[in-house]
Amino acid sequence: MAKVKIIETALRDAHQSLIATRMRTEDMVPILQDMDKVGYFSLEAWGGATFDTCIRFLNEDPWERLRVFKENLKNTPIQMLLRGQNLVGYKHYADDVVEEFVAKSYENGVDIFRIFDALNDIRNMQTAIKTAKDVGGYVQGTISYTISPVHTIDTYVEFAKQLEELDCDAITIKDMAGLITPSMARDLITALKDEVSLDVNLHSHCTSGMTLMSYEAAIEAGVDMLDTAISPFSGGTSQPPTESVVAALQGTKYDTGINLESLTPVKEYFVELDEKYKALLDPLSSKVDADVLLYQVPGGMLSNLVSQLKQQDAIDKYDDVLDEIPKVREDLGYPPLVTPTSQIVGVQAVMNVLTGERYSNITKEVKDYLRGLYGKPPAPINQDLYKKANGDEEPVTGRPADLLEPELPEARKKLEDEKLMNKEEDLLTYVLYPTVAEKFLKGEAVAEEIPEPNKIEYAPTSIPTSYDVEVD
Amino acid sequence: MAKVKIIETALRDAHQSLIATRMRTEDMVPILQDMDKVGYFSLEAWGGATFDTCIRFLNEDPWERLRVFKENLKNTPIQMLLRGQNLVGYKHYADDVVEEFVAKSYENGVDIFRIFDALNDIRNMQTAIKTAKDVGGYVQGTISYTISPVHTIDTYVEFAKQLEELDCDAITIKDMAGLITPSMARDLITALKDEVSLDVNLHSHCTSGMTLMSYEAAIEAGVDMLDTAISPFSGGTSQPPTESVVAALQGTKYDTGINLESLTPVKEYFVELDEKYKALLDPLSSKVDADVLLYQVPGGMLSNLVSQLKQQDAIDKYDDVLDEIPKVREDLGYPPLVTPTSQIVGVQAVMNVLTGERYSNITKEVKDYLRGLYGKPPAPINQDLYKKANGDEEPVTGRPADLLEPELPEARKKLEDEKLMNKEEDLLTYVLYPTVAEKFLKGEAVAEEIPEPNKIEYAPTSIPTSYDVEVD
Ligand SMILES: [Co+2]
Ligand SMILES: [Co+2]
Repeated sequence: MAKVKIIETALRDAHQSLIATRMRTEDMVPILQDMDKVGYFSLEAWGGATFDTCIRFLNEDPWERLRVFKENLKNTPIQMLLRGQNLVGYKHYADDVVEEFVAKSYENGVDIFRIFDALNDIRNMQTAIKTAKDVGGYVQGTISYTISPVHTIDTYVEFAKQLEELDCDAITIKDMAGLITPSMARDLITALKDEVSLDVNLHSHCTSGMTLMSYEAAIEAGVDMLDTAISPFSGGTSQPPTESVVAALQGTKYDTGINLESLTPVKEYFVELDEKYKALLDPLSSKVDADVLLYQVPGGMLSNLVSQLKQQDAIDKYDDVLDEIPKVREDLGYPPLVTPTSQIVGVQAVMNVLTGERYSNITKEVKDYLRGLYGKPPAPINQDLYKKANGDEEPVTGRPADLLEPELPEARKKLEDEKLMNKEEDLLTYVLYPTVAEKFLKGEAVAEEIPEPNKIEYAPTSIPTSYDVEVD
Repeated sequence: MAKVKIIETALRDAHQSLIATRMRTEDMVPILQDMDKVGYFSLEAWGGATFDTCIRFLNEDPWERLRVFKENLKNTPIQMLLRGQNLVGYKHYADDVVEEFVAKSYENGVDIFRIFDALNDIRNMQTAIKTAKDVGGYVQGTISYTISPVHTIDTYVEFAKQLEELDCDAITIKDMAGLITPSMARDLITALKDEVSLDVNLHSHCTSGMTLMSYEAAIEAGVDMLDTAISPFSGGTSQPPTESVVAALQGTKYDTGINLESLTPVKEYFVELDEKYKALLDPLSSKVDADVLLYQVPGGMLSNLVSQLKQQDAIDKYDDVLDEIPKVREDLGYPPLVTPTSQIVGVQAVMNVLTGERYSNITKEVKDYLRGLYGKPPAPINQDLYKKANGDEEPVTGRPADLLEPELPEARKKLEDEKLMNKEEDLLTYVLYPTVAEKFLKGEAVAEEIPEPNKIEYAPTSIPTSYDVEVD
């Protein structure tokens, strides 16, 4: 009997974090039946960025992927990551879209819905949670974890209680930047276990290098589930290694119930995939990034910042932008940095630095954010900035999705007129990503090539090749 | 005031583990003064394989390296790894050599001596420990950690008490294979803190991926010092990242006393060194190696096993050798696998498999080991094997070094005759490694080139380059 249950992320978060979500369905299918034998609590395998990537880069139908998974996974629940009212996109969709998307996800194979909102605004999660529960799903109500003056154990516990009231089955602490310290993990999980009667799960990333310490502290504090990734796809910006957590707990009162040897075929398979995809792996993403510890922003944001500044020939502004990010975040009321707020804050910070005058140029997203269109910021926003951005326009205080008209009828008409709808799910694909989906549904999408890994020659004469290596 | 003290291993174990000990003195000197400001308990910077590598591959005088270190480190103690009666070699040296080596090491700059024996045989450590204490050094009496039926908390505590009686200043748990689990770390450190009145230090490697969990458990059990490596030289077969441990404990009752920002210049410098030496980095050595968890042998042994079998065109025998290693280890009374027992066991296991008949060929080292020439095995050895190896020859039960005549007088005469001795320390270099040292002292050694890293082209068009990366 497993005391600490393991959620394997190789098929979603791990490849999203390490190789830009580029793993093909055909590369996943051959290992599913072995994974199904392991005894994971669930396989996180769908949602997040996988949906977009399928139609945009892989010319794959995400619904078809889900059905193939379901056929091959007879024992292990399939879990998806759902961005609340944003579903698997970057903006709010109307309730009719949310309800239909959740229902169709369940129908096609999703058993467990991990539902979060970037602002921890429960109003952005309630339609998704209610629908998932109604159709029969298991829901992990999710706390987007961050560090700020207004994010405290008390506010997190308060939020968890709201999730419990919505009938969630478990609470997930989603630490997308890998910022949670061992002491915070211990205190937060202890408080949640005391005050909420649900199972508690910790999801983190290794970026900062502290994560395994925090997992150990979480275990001792009574965490019920941990997210891990099979070793070849673990570490760096991905999750801690599954085998290591399983081995560490073996034979203790926290035993995961997983037999270490059952992971060997899974590991060996992913070693090969790692080879196949390694040209996509940014070498930085597999390393500990100490900058994350200093700047408290997700590793993905840091590496993108570098690319973006290089493209604009402004890499000398890197430190300035790093200084600017926390200021923008403060102006915006300390949003956790996760899709889409990571982009909103990052882009504005870059603009503030590159234009030479803060907020001389304000993005549409920041204007909308300030008006409340993304939900309620965790702390009061900067009122001067509000005026500069939105003038006398009134802020929105209600549930953002209440402003949205149903979206399906019109989309259905268009798809039917153009004979692009072969199944109900195509309608959802289209509503989520109209431009990309249209191309995809017309059969005009082309799968990216997997870039050839350059062979790296290691200096064989310089590496000791006999048993005279010294083990100290 | 530091509650958990940090020992930085970048200059010894980290580059020994990741790039075959090939870092040059000239590449270390520029960062020493920054490292000296950090507030480490000590810098592990000398001993282990660094001595041999200096004269064999780098055409560098290890004594000169030590003196340069000392000149640049005004605040931070220099620590060395000493293999007991083996010093920095692979066999026992006579007491006169041990005494002189330890005295000269101290004189040239070593403040802290970490002294271990591969068999945890105190008789192989006593001359070194006594000399180090007599000359004024601080001694970490070291437990070589392993897993076997005869290695228990009780036997480790018993051994630690022997080390305490020899006047050691601290106890180091040396987990060279990264095998210690969180529960074992907790139990062992708790027992040591209860039963021994010395500071306790944990040294481990990340190979198995559990190590940061074990560090967290060790911290909670009251460990006094932890070994870590600056992030660019951390992870994989090296130590956990310094910055991560510092950040994890910041502001808690376990605070390391180190300011995270003081590590930034150190990190940035080692990022550059990592670039310079990366052709020497076996990519496997920077990854979690789940095989270590299954086979419980150090990662270095596994990767060498692969190389050795490949050279002999016998890689198909890999699994057989992995099965054989624990059997040889049992026959030999469960020695911990560390220099030199890792080599002794590894080579014999390969022979047992490749010859097709176990022990049809027995190495001289195994014969000597069985006779007791390396010290007392932790458990009784296989008596049938003893007879096969050594016939009626009596085993040695006394202290192995008691069989050795003083070695310095004859060596001194030779060096003086050949005019190869420019300073007292040259005598020690020669006694330790006669063949290699002679070439080195004659000025005939040539420094290896650092192999050029092949440029790896990552597929830039396929990696998202703007802020549309998704952070989930
Ligand atoms: Co070591
Ligand atoms: Co994640």
